[in-house]
Amino acid sequence: MADTILMAHGSGGKLAHRLVEDLIMPAISGTDPARLDDSAIIELRGRMAFTTDSYVIDPIFFPGGDIGKLAVCGTTNDLSMSGARPLYMSLSFIIEEGLPVSDLKRILESIHSAADEAGVRIVTGDTKVVDHGNADKLYVNTAGIGTIPTGVDISGANIRPGDKVILSGTIGDHGIAIMSKREGLQFGTNLLSDCAPLNKLVEDMIGASDNIHALRDPTRGGLATTLNELCLQSGTKVVVEEKKIPIRDEVAAACEMLGLDPMYVANEGKLVAFVTPSDAGKVLSAMRLNKYGTDSAIIGEVEEPDEAPSVVMKTLLGTSRLIDILVGDLLPRIC
Amino acid sequence: MADTILMAHGSGGKLAHRLVEDLIMPAISGTDPARLDDSAIIELRGRMAFTTDSYVIDPIFFPGGDIGKLAVCGTTNDLSMSGARPLYMSLSFIIEEGLPVSDLKRILESIHSAADEAGVRIVTGDTKVVDHGNADKLYVNTAGIGTIPTGVDISGANIRPGDKVILSGTIGDHGIAIMSKREGLQFGTNLLSDCAPLNKLVEDMIGASDNIHALRDPTRGGLATTLNELCLQSGTKVVVEEKKIPIRDEVAAACEMLGLDPMYVANEGKLVAFVTPSDAGKVLSAMRLNKYGTDSAIIGEVEEPDEAPSVVMKTLLGTSRLIDILVGDLLPRIC
Repeated sequence: MADTILMAHGSGGKLAHRLVEDLIMPAISGTDPARLDDSAIIELRGRMAFTTDSYVIDPIFFPGGDIGKLAVCGTTNDLSMSGARPLYMSLSFIIEEGLPVSDLKRILESIHSAADEAGVRIVTGDTKVVDHGNADKLYVNTAGIGTIPTGVDISGANIRPGDKVILSGTIGDHGIAIMSKREGLQFGTNLLSDCAPLNKLVEDMIGASDNIHALRDPTRGGLATTLNELCLQSGTKVVVEEKKIPIRDEVAAACEMLGLDPMYVANEGKLVAFVTPSDAGKVLSAMRLNKYGTDSAIIGEVEEPDEAPSVVMKTLLGTSRLIDILVGDLLPRIC
Repeated sequence: MADTILMAHGSGGKLAHRLVEDLIMPAISGTDPARLDDSAIIELRGRMAFTTDSYVIDPIFFPGGDIGKLAVCGTTNDLSMSGARPLYMSLSFIIEEGLPVSDLKRILESIHSAADEAGVRIVTGDTKVVDHGNADKLYVNTAGIGTIPTGVDISGANIRPGDKVILSGTIGDHGIAIMSKREGLQFGTNLLSDCAPLNKLVEDMIGASDNIHALRDPTRGGLATTLNELCLQSGTKVVVEEKKIPIRDEVAAACEMLGLDPMYVANEGKLVAFVTPSDAGKVLSAMRLNKYGTDSAIIGEVEEPDEAPSVVMKTLLGTSRLIDILVGDLLPRIC
């Protein structure tokens, strides 16, 4: 095996076969190397969630994770937000010529370990190589299939006035960890991306209540964007209280220094849940018992809309502030 | 809508929402814009094929197709090669900042039309934008799910000595069409890529015989690489006759001029089938009635292996030549 990825690793030739058979397949759990057909064969029954994401994060290694862990967790989480239990995943690489093979190995190990934790099987994949200067080290695509348990119906469209809004922990950790790595800045001690698979947390929540109306992971665009998407989808007004939204001191300090609003900074291991008020306590307790939900908090509730759907924040100063979607870009290539 | 894609189109902000809602979603059949959750919800029952590919072809527009048509057809064909009927597809873009919006529109129209022809529904997707110089215009990933009819068991592992090898048409059209566009060369008149969805052809074949053992589309690495993969997977010797392999005059001429062996040149609308000898005639007749199989031919048969699995060609001169897998790269970024 060469030390760096060459264009020939992306051909149909021997080098490509060796890359896939010697490096990629052994690193991935659940694949059956005896069956090298173009498709994986899987048995499925019932309502399924199906999702995809491409990952172009810069840098590919960051405090708390790398592009491989991010891809597996991101697709796991997208499935989980429909209430689905993740089952199968595809994995596709676009590699820039010259990527050190050791980097690819580290990322494959990280993919393996994230898939193990999430309990998802990677069953099919693809590898392309592009010439130097036509990608930035490595892009990853994952698509996932998950099974939706009978009776589960979780969608942004189900949100209704009265619902409590529960957030699973601190906001902005991922975005600020990436920024700090990218810009070579140090904000306090060891700020890590929150990148994590949330499917077990969602299972715990669904186990605690049949009245979870909607779930969403506030990634690109942060909590503000997610809340806006959900108020638009459900035609409601979402009111959150600034003082109840958990945030790490170092993230708050970094945001102040960089002029960023943490409400718009990406998360990769958090979710926001909309729950019938009478069940909010049960759901919150279940979340706090899960390691990815220890800082969970009820941050607000849903009201009838004014003229149009909106998101409003009651600030620390006691005023009300409209939380809009940004027009442009806060942090490019954050996932 | 701006004339070119900006970094902000890849953020979680308003420009990103507008791109997806105004341009991408309307261009895609079968999506339900009312349901903007992270996953599509689909009903599935039984044995399914699941596959993915990323497409990095250069150029993104070529004679006979574009990267969008290629992605839909490629994933349709990978599913079909397991005998599956394609049902659902995901679609993910990595766009280089500066791509003309008109190019994206053309590609979306082409995706729409290829998906319509294949009868596959695009139900979920993702869009990322990277800064200028970190991609080459546009990369596309598709993942697909298809249903395998009861009783169908098609795999390279099922090939056995005696099987007839049937090829669905001329080889090398895609690779040479791309080369001619890339290098600005003209080989004869109007050589087009063969890029096409083969699922209906496969349905016709399965309708004609229960004894199709294996199917494979000879894409990257060409027919030679595909035959090698299959002889290795099944532990057999595959013997093909050069004079029976269909090839266009202009492709043969171009290969001679460029010093390429057409056996290694990529195809995107051809398949090779391994069929019980007694059914080969029926399958061949069914194939010739389909517009994507008019030039189908029996090109060889499977034998017991010698010491190791191998692919052998009986040449026009009457000699035998071992057809190996290439080590390196013939035509980079051909798909």
